Amino acid sequence: MEYQTILEHIYQEIQPLAKEGKQADYIPALAKVNPDQFGLCLRLMKGKVYELGAADVRFSIQSISKVFSLAMTLSLKGEALWDRVGVEPSGSAFNSLVQLEYEHGKPRNPFINAGAIVTSDILLSHYGREQAETVFLEFVRALCGNNDICYNPEVAESEQSTGYLNASIAYLLKYHHNIENDIHDVLHLYFMMCSVEMNCRELSQAFLAFARSNAPFNHGGIELTMSQVKRINAIMQTCGFYDEAGEFSFKVGLPGKSGVGGGIVALYPSRYAITVWSPRLNEKGNSILGMKALELFTTETSESIF
Amino acid sequence: MEYQTILEHIYQEIQPLAKEGKQADYIPALAKVNPDQFGLCLRLMKGKVYELGAADVRFSIQSISKVFSLAMTLSLKGEALWDRVGVEPSGSAFNSLVQLEYEHGKPRNPFINAGAIVTSDILLSHYGREQAETVFLEFVRALCGNNDICYNPEVAESEQSTGYLNASIAYLLKYHHNIENDIHDVLHLYFMMCSVEMNCRELSQAFLAFARSNAPFNHGGIELTMSQVKRINAIMQTCGFYDEAGEFSFKVGLPGKSGVGGGIVALYPSRYAITVWSPRLNEKGNSILGMKALELFTTETSESIF
Amino acid sequence: MEYQTILEHIYQEIQPLAKEGKQADYIPALAKVNPDQFGLCLRLMKGKVYELGAADVRFSIQSISKVFSLAMTLSLKGEALWDRVGVEPSGSAFNSLVQLEYEHGKPRNPFINAGAIVTSDILLSHYGREQAETVFLEFVRALCGNNDICYNPEVAESEQSTGYLNASIAYLLKYHHNIENDIHDVLHLYFMMCSVEMNCRELSQAFLAFARSNAPFNHGGIELTMSQVKRINAIMQTCGFYDEAGEFSFKVGLPGKSGVGGGIVALYPSRYAITVWSPRLNEKGNSILGMKALELFTTETSESIF
Amino acid sequence: MEYQTILEHIYQEIQPLAKEGKQADYIPALAKVNPDQFGLCLRLMKGKVYELGAADVRFSIQSISKVFSLAMTLSLKGEALWDRVGVEPSGSAFNSLVQLEYEHGKPRNPFINAGAIVTSDILLSHYGREQAETVFLEFVRALCGNNDICYNPEVAESEQSTGYLNASIAYLLKYHHNIENDIHDVLHLYFMMCSVEMNCRELSQAFLAFARSNAPFNHGGIELTMSQVKRINAIMQTCGFYDEAGEFSFKVGLPGKSGVGGGIVALYPSRYAITVWSPRLNEKGNSILGMKALELFTTETSESIF
Repeated sequence: MEYQTILEHIYQEIQPLAKEGKQADYIPALAKVNPDQFGLCLRLMKGKVYELGAADVRFSIQSISKVFSLAMTLSLKGEALWDRVGVEPSGSAFNSLVQLEYEHGKPRNPFINAGAIVTSDILLSHYGREQAETVFLEFVRALCGNNDICYNPEVAESEQSTGYLNASIAYLLKYHHNIENDIHDVLHLYFMMCSVEMNCRELSQAFLAFARSNAPFNHGGIELTMSQVKRINAIMQTCGFYDEAGEFSFKVGLPGKSGVGGGIVALYPSRYAITVWSPRLNEKGNSILGMKALELFTTETSESIF
Repeated sequence: MEYQTILEHIYQEIQPLAKEGKQADYIPALAKVNPDQFGLCLRLMKGKVYELGAADVRFSIQSISKVFSLAMTLSLKGEALWDRVGVEPSGSAFNSLVQLEYEHGKPRNPFINAGAIVTSDILLSHYGREQAETVFLEFVRALCGNNDICYNPEVAESEQSTGYLNASIAYLLKYHHNIENDIHDVLHLYFMMCSVEMNCRELSQAFLAFARSNAPFNHGGIELTMSQVKRINAIMQTCGFYDEAGEFSFKVGLPGKSGVGGGIVALYPSRYAITVWSPRLNEKGNSILGMKALELFTTETSESIF
Repeated sequence: MEYQTILEHIYQEIQPLAKEGKQADYIPALAKVNPDQFGLCLRLMKGKVYELGAADVRFSIQSISKVFSLAMTLSLKGEALWDRVGVEPSGSAFNSLVQLEYEHGKPRNPFINAGAIVTSDILLSHYGREQAETVFLEFVRALCGNNDICYNPEVAESEQSTGYLNASIAYLLKYHHNIENDIHDVLHLYFMMCSVEMNCRELSQAFLAFARSNAPFNHGGIELTMSQVKRINAIMQTCGFYDEAGEFSFKVGLPGKSGVGGGIVALYPSRYAITVWSPRLNEKGNSILGMKALELFTTETSESIF
Repeated sequence: MEYQTILEHIYQEIQPLAKEGKQADYIPALAKVNPDQFGLCLRLMKGKVYELGAADVRFSIQSISKVFSLAMTLSLKGEALWDRVGVEPSGSAFNSLVQLEYEHGKPRNPFINAGAIVTSDILLSHYGREQAETVFLEFVRALCGNNDICYNPEVAESEQSTGYLNASIAYLLKYHHNIENDIHDVLHLYFMMCSVEMNCRELSQAFLAFARSNAPFNHGGIELTMSQVKRINAIMQTCGFYDEAGEFSFKVGLPGKSGVGGGIVALYPSRYAITVWSPRLNEKGNSILGMKALELFTTETSESIF
């Protein structure tokens, strides 16, 4: 069956779930998004692109940005990065702070908030306050080939001013000597990166760079070896979906990353990257339609990495 | 480079680690194994076999047996299996009992001891005491095509008589109504399955059945759909190495399963299964030479699923 | 105001709570008790006795027995006892097994189940299987001066056969080398001690021995120094009511011990011992009428140790 | 034996421990204190005073201040205080943040840091920023009858600038809606109260007010009922020494409160208050000589509340 036909078929199948869940509402900027939007973009390594719905409407990428900051810090630090953040799945949401306290301030992996706060600190130490934001944005723009990708400072500001749990995590990291910079600056950079807005088309383009693991990676000045790209994929496989990482790996069988803006990106190494966006979330913070669409996609195409 | 050359090269490279760690010693039967043995067997889907060292010496498969019992219970129960055991990584070793208590007796996945005790209980309920052992052994024999695979009842007995932590876990599961049978019988079956002895050649043959995920699985009367085989692989990817699952996924990039007997099996879907055995373990309970050999193998062959 | 008048006043005041909660029902023997019974006995050091209701109806003392086994083991082991069990409050119910796992099998105090399983083991090691039960019973009989105090073996048997959580705890203790004897024997003794049946009159008499902290303690062959008696009182003050120890200390201000049979004993050093019994429990497992009656008693008499 | 003789005897007995442990060194102001100082002041309800060593040298009272802020907030809020903070012992130090997370931001008791940060917030909401500090100081001055008791703003400043763990706790409380004011302001007040400097003589005088539990409490405008004073004592008994509360209750048998400045105050209701100060701490943060001196004092006088 042709991909476009499969996608349209999936679109029909997920309709019964279309009104389940609701969008993230802890900040006004996310709460006022129309929850009934849906977009999908599949981009093959060989060039073909298939789309559904609002594939060109931008949304807040939120935690998907953690893949970009991991790529940057792995490029900067190499293996030394793993002294400050681990590569193990975090077990479960309930013990974010708990686990951090037991493990003396070393976050389990770069995709939980604690881990991405540490990678933000590394970027800040290396680039300095102003430059860090610029370099990050240039990297993302280079990845998707679009120079008008931007931060949404209102979203960033709003998240920072209400982000008490993240502040609590950041101070605990600082207490354990795993933050070098001023907490306010670290959180500012962290929330700025989360506030970037992209659409499905741009995200699929950006993640195709990570699907190409048989060639060196060099985008916007960020260089990674083939082995490093594979390892980023391995971390997406085991840690990309918080407490649903096992469930996603189990049902979808691809490395991926989700964000509370409702976006999910997944990739099949050497073949394609696919992005789905729909703001209504399940209780774990992952897009309901996005999870279901990806499960159906790999089932119907029989294409998982396993 | 030819596989045999790569394997011999790897064998040279791991020598500096040959005396690190020591074998499991909590039961006499495991403690008296010569710790300086090493075996490896790579079996390609297309039929070729490559070996190194003691590939034909049998050892206690221990937790590798959990893949077989998962296959059997998934075949029996289908999706209903996930009501009694999860598919999420367990986070970390330190909280085996902790996590079980918080999650009211539902083990995180079928590869932690708690999960495999539950699958043992399911087999016991379905087949009855005597038949359960027979069916399990026939399944394993059918998988590797060798009828003289056997339990080592002395090992099983010895483990059961000193297995206080597993008994503690089993009673906690019973308290949460997740064990139907008598604890003693459940633990007896559990330890019998762990006591099976196989060599690298037999394990690679057995796991080739799980690498063949594009055809129905039917061995020794146990049937699985293609989708179910993929899902077993996904669980091996995220949960196969206890608290080192992320590390293994990160460094090796293949689904796999280890046991405290020093064996590790990994597989590349549609391509091969590879088994390494060496009794000296790291502090997480995984074979030191085995982990390193597999890391070098996927690095030198550039063959990971990512 | 005269004590009898105060007691009758209290009895009126607690009536609105008379139908709240329900008795422990996890074993038939406890479930079939008439939940609407109430008894109280205040026994002054100087000899006077005041009673209300069913002060002479026997009930299952359950965890109140832990005070007796603590006294016996402290007499046997002296300070060495604290190598195997602590004197700190346990924090909260939710983490019984959790805390035990973190603290490597040393129970926080002798009044949580884990601690009393350890004291049972100590008695078993010292006295042997048959003798341990006999010596315990003789001690309790000597304390209350009544030779027809007995175990209820049916209750003990019933508890042991369904006591999966206690078995889980006992195996975890064994795993950490804090149990010397066979688990079954330890639990048998533990549940036998819990199954002893006494009435309010007998319990107040028995605890008067602990209220007399300015003279050596010598009952039924068990000897304690004045300092040891004070320390048993201190542990009752900080650990006697599980997760409500602070609440009881806060509202009542006396050392005491409760049991799920609905009994509560409290004492005012050098002055009196008081026992209340009523089977309906709050969610923490303490008698609702008992807690309220004691709170009112120390408030109306202005007699707390503080 | 006369008290002064007993005190001098104790002083001789503790000398072998005089060089054990070291003072708190996480802030310069505490680190530069001469660790070899020792002071003691026993003040009887009937008026007599007994002293040893540097009883008139002021030191940083640190957590002893938490008793004063508890008294103020209990006076302000009455029973409603317990909606925001509990009265249960905290179990153990290791799980400060853990327990707070499980219990959704309600601190276990007012003497752990989290609890005292909440009482600081309550004072701030009621009195406003400037007035809160003034009223607190006036209360302490009234308690000990000395108007030159002061904050040490340098100590407060220094603690706040390095107090990452307390900031982490405060943000977690805020996340759970248990802090009303700006975090910086709350922590400022909290650290100011900790920085108050008093000597043994002044502390014994101040705590005599809490030992007098048979008369209304009215000092510096803060009023408490007799019952409220008793309850403050009960909380000191069960929660006054962090993870050593059971140990202190067990060995000393009196309500009390310690601080990392090396001070410990204990009281015997209706009889006396006693303060010991010596900067060298054990691993739990309590003064080594202070703990030992109080243990010997109640042993040699046979005066504990039990």
